[in-house]
Amino acid sequence: MSYENAWLNYRMRQDCRDKKYFSKVYAGDNCLYTQTAVRELEIAAREILDIKTERVGNCETAGIWLKLDQNSEAGEEGYHIREKDGRIIISSAGGRGLLYGSFALIRRLQLEQTLEGICIEQVPSNPYRMLNHWDNMDGSIERGYSGNSFFFQDEMVLVNERTRAYARLAASAGINASVINNVNVRGNATKLITDVYGEELRQMSEIFAQYGIRLFLSLNFAAPMELGNLDTADPLDDRVKAWWKEAMADIFGRIPNLGGFLVKADSEGRPGPFTYGRDHADGANTLAEAAAPHGGVIIWRCFVYNCQQDWRDRKTDRAKAGYENFMPLDGKFKENVILQIKNGPMDFQVREPLSPLLDGLQDTNQILEVQIAQEYTGQQRHICYLIPMFKEISDGSFRKNNWGMAAISNTGNDENWTGHDLAAANLYGFGRLSFDSELTAEEIAEEWAVCTFGKNEKVTKTVVKMLLMSWPAYEKYTSPLGIGWMVNPNHHYGPNVDGYEYDRWGTYHRADHLGIGVDRSSRGTGYARQYREPLASIYENILTCPEELLLFFHHVPYTYRLRSGKTLIQHIYDTHFEGAQDAAELAVLWDSLEGCISEKVFERVKKRLEHQKEHAGEWRDQINTYFFRKSMIPDEKGRHIYE
Amino acid sequence: MSYENAWLNYRMRQDCRDKKYFSKVYAGDNCLYTQTAVRELEIAAREILDIKTERVGNCETAGIWLKLDQNSEAGEEGYHIREKDGRIIISSAGGRGLLYGSFALIRRLQLEQTLEGICIEQVPSNPYRMLNHWDNMDGSIERGYSGNSFFFQDEMVLVNERTRAYARLAASAGINASVINNVNVRGNATKLITDVYGEELRQMSEIFAQYGIRLFLSLNFAAPMELGNLDTADPLDDRVKAWWKEAMADIFGRIPNLGGFLVKADSEGRPGPFTYGRDHADGANTLAEAAAPHGGVIIWRCFVYNCQQDWRDRKTDRAKAGYENFMPLDGKFKENVILQIKNGPMDFQVREPLSPLLDGLQDTNQILEVQIAQEYTGQQRHICYLIPMFKEISDGSFRKNNWGMAAISNTGNDENWTGHDLAAANLYGFGRLSFDSELTAEEIAEEWAVCTFGKNEKVTKTVVKMLLMSWPAYEKYTSPLGIGWMVNPNHHYGPNVDGYEYDRWGTYHRADHLGIGVDRSSRGTGYARQYREPLASIYENILTCPEELLLFFHHVPYTYRLRSGKTLIQHIYDTHFEGAQDAAELAVLWDSLEGCISEKVFERVKKRLEHQKEHAGEWRDQINTYFFRKSMIPDEKGRHIYE
Repeated sequence: MSYENAWLNYRMRQDCRDKKYFSKVYAGDNCLYTQTAVRELEIAAREILDIKTERVGNCETAGIWLKLDQNSEAGEEGYHIREKDGRIIISSAGGRGLLYGSFALIRRLQLEQTLEGICIEQVPSNPYRMLNHWDNMDGSIERGYSGNSFFFQDEMVLVNERTRAYARLAASAGINASVINNVNVRGNATKLITDVYGEELRQMSEIFAQYGIRLFLSLNFAAPMELGNLDTADPLDDRVKAWWKEAMADIFGRIPNLGGFLVKADSEGRPGPFTYGRDHADGANTLAEAAAPHGGVIIWRCFVYNCQQDWRDRKTDRAKAGYENFMPLDGKFKENVILQIKNGPMDFQVREPLSPLLDGLQDTNQILEVQIAQEYTGQQRHICYLIPMFKEISDGSFRKNNWGMAAISNTGNDENWTGHDLAAANLYGFGRLSFDSELTAEEIAEEWAVCTFGKNEKVTKTVVKMLLMSWPAYEKYTSPLGIGWMVNPNHHYGPNVDGYEYDRWGTYHRADHLGIGVDRSSRGTGYARQYREPLASIYENILTCPEELLLFFHHVPYTYRLRSGKTLIQHIYDTHFEGAQDAAELAVLWDSLEGCISEKVFERVKKRLEHQKEHAGEWRDQINTYFFRKSMIPDEKGRHIYE
Repeated sequence: MSYENAWLNYRMRQDCRDKKYFSKVYAGDNCLYTQTAVRELEIAAREILDIKTERVGNCETAGIWLKLDQNSEAGEEGYHIREKDGRIIISSAGGRGLLYGSFALIRRLQLEQTLEGICIEQVPSNPYRMLNHWDNMDGSIERGYSGNSFFFQDEMVLVNERTRAYARLAASAGINASVINNVNVRGNATKLITDVYGEELRQMSEIFAQYGIRLFLSLNFAAPMELGNLDTADPLDDRVKAWWKEAMADIFGRIPNLGGFLVKADSEGRPGPFTYGRDHADGANTLAEAAAPHGGVIIWRCFVYNCQQDWRDRKTDRAKAGYENFMPLDGKFKENVILQIKNGPMDFQVREPLSPLLDGLQDTNQILEVQIAQEYTGQQRHICYLIPMFKEISDGSFRKNNWGMAAISNTGNDENWTGHDLAAANLYGFGRLSFDSELTAEEIAEEWAVCTFGKNEKVTKTVVKMLLMSWPAYEKYTSPLGIGWMVNPNHHYGPNVDGYEYDRWGTYHRADHLGIGVDRSSRGTGYARQYREPLASIYENILTCPEELLLFFHHVPYTYRLRSGKTLIQHIYDTHFEGAQDAAELAVLWDSLEGCISEKVFERVKKRLEHQKEHAGEWRDQINTYFFRKSMIPDEKGRHIYE
């Protein structure tokens, strides 16, 4: 299947004054990364500047000098770029820094910013900048909305030119680690750690390595039983420990660029240490001990909760589960264990408070997990630019034990990689934000728009406007004020107010004739008390609780007055009318770009926007009707709510 | 896979005075059916009476005489049985009558009723007594709850000893026609009418023939395109007509015992005449013309409605669709077309009014379609003995153009045929009721219980009690007063009050804070007016409308007083508490039979009853909570309703 270049869709520039730099490149070393950096500079020179780059033997005559400098304060992955005397020097303590510096330089070319006098210093904000792919070996993707996997097909591992294109795209945005298989490891995927797929994975990891990307695999905690014929996977059993040691020695020996493993254990039916009366530290540490001699890390997901809850039970609160399960283990994990924690306590809803675990854990390595696969945010049929959300999230999460950010990827083998062309802004944006947390969501949107569609003020302004209004719009026409979950079960697309209300997943809104919301204050489930002060008190009190999270923390009468002076019910009606209107406006905005965007892309996006507009209307009507039927309070503005 | 004998589970009787009859049998003819009849008498004699039957050459010495009598008033399928001078004479105008008579005689043996002085005359109430199997060629069964198909597996047709066991069971209950493949004809199933599967189907039809069962196939209306390479399936196109003629000549030539075809057209995505601007008479008549020279009939389903409705639309009413589509065609169908009409205007809900089409059509052959597969009535995990419902239905439907009854079958390759052992009562009962509409539901239940579990008064009484209380119980704890549809979408199992409320299927309850129900009077959708008087007026008026159908026909305030003096909401609460209690009692009743029933069957049923009890509690709580949250009217009796 053919594929496009996304934001590396280079366009020729006429009369660019910066040609001079690119005609001669000098690289002081010849490491893998530097070779890639030079190649990327050559591609950009050819495609953007229409010149052929000469590799010269010393820095004196070079226009660009890739300078490995072990004393560089930018570190192994950071870089300095400075222009001096007609020469651009990109320096770093590591080859990867030179690669990122080169991509940064090329981006400036794409953005048509001058290179004269350039002086940039950039150190990555996060050591780990990961993509998690939920790709299955049959080629399907769990929560995938962009076609099938480009890593797997028919139980085989795919290694081809698209593997390289993927690595190149990811690296250009700043990604340095990729977990290629689904965290739900079943069937043949369990065998990915054996030599059955060894050769293909080695080849893939070598391609990744050229772009500074570590290969990670999701593993099956029960592998000692499924592969090793042991009768237990008890992490404290000596045979199990020995089995893991041997398995790790084997795979790290075969795949030098392997970074380690991601583990989903005791979660939604996956096996884990609980089966053996062990805790998650026991489980993670056994794997970590086995991986440590090889420099491997174990990334352990904290998405552990009771998924057999009873809707009648008002004491158990799924939101509390992560903290309850992992907080007592703070400080007990080995050095090479990193806990991967979802941004919110539930599951990637359009609005959630930050997980109290992120703030709570003091002596445990953490990776913040977000989802750019739009499972609950329109599934790449709606635009929902999530970088503003991630920005809030990463600003709010503590940095002390920060090891990075991971995103559930939104990619697939669709020609444009992400199904919706505009969803690529989330892929790009996640990489950029995890590399440079100082960037604003707007800056990222603008970078992406120009790199993707070329420099055209009208296009850039319009696309940036669309992106920035999309998350607020989606929030408005879907579930109100942080309550979440009003979606169709299983596939999670489209409105269904009671869809998860009487189910086993711990996901309730508790709406009745008088009000809606879950009391998570200390009078209710007590979840608010998991936060450290002052947040605990802020959330606890309906008067200080941020209104966008009001229904997440409190059960509120429809007649309650919000700070706007509106009643809650009126707010629900208003936001739903507004949100659907915003969706309609998105379609109008895009239509204004006809002729400014390649026809193929224009039509592709137009079709999705038409669906979004219609579907946002369905959301509006179902939500408004549901609450009108329940509350019987009419819309103050007399708009049409179906009975 | 092994299988049991269901109600043909013969038990040895000691000291039976009726042995004498069975020692010598004389059959005056040697047709296929009579041969089977003799074989069945032999089996019964051996297994019940422990004697070997001798076939004798004349009636004089015979204890049982199978007498073909062309002048018999019982007709081809009816029979007389009478004892005279120590000899039992079974007579009929046809071999099939002799077969049914033999089964009737054997049944009396099973029931331990004396044969002395027996004098029975029985003419089948329905010419067609059909089973419709929704079996797919991959072996799955649409709405199947008893394992996989025993007709198909891996795209192959299965013919083996189970085929015979099926035919024998069906015939013993009175069935004389079987459609073996799903009405949704896709993939290889389209090719069932070609010679690809010809040999297997011929073999199957020959086995069926021995038991007096005509083989029917569901066909794909678009077959002329899919198989014939035509660019149209327009029923008025000469090439299409010619194609069908040839196809029919071919298949009827190859399969002499083929009865004809069942067709689902223009329904739920299936192709049909509407595509070509033709009506259903055009469609059916083209097929009928092609089948007529071979004595074949076309059974045409009337389940045609708009399944892309908008929940906001209060004018369109799915209930009206069958009548609207077919009533104008009354009198326009060929003689060998039979319309197959579901009992209710919706789709096999626990309570529906009788379809107005059944009453309306005056000059059109009809088959009444019911469903013993418990799609909406507990999926053979709950007991729901449906014969009382069918009894009401068949009593209510006009007989004028009656060609029979068809049931969507509840069978599969489970060892006990029907998943739930007690669900076999529906299979047996459907056959018996369609053969003899005078039987009461209680009589049938008793017959079935004794034949299945042996003669044991405690067992019979208990099982009959359980069966008779099961439909009312199921109705009580599920959707109230005829409104239907409060189930989980797609699989249709378990409570979900809003599951179909905002969907495209035309299935709404319209509940709000004040009331619930669909106004189908002339002030509403006007559906009630499709009935002939006096029914139209009866349904039209909330005061005369039968209360069990109240919410089907009217939107009613929760505070409305029913004839019982209870408010509607209190009725909802009461019936749900009662229904769940009934389900609990069913489990207690069954437990009282421990030791009286084989352990294997006892445990199998016990497990399902425990689930039913728990699941009925879930129904009770979800429904009651839903309406309490919406209405905020408390239970008068102060029982626990979850908030």
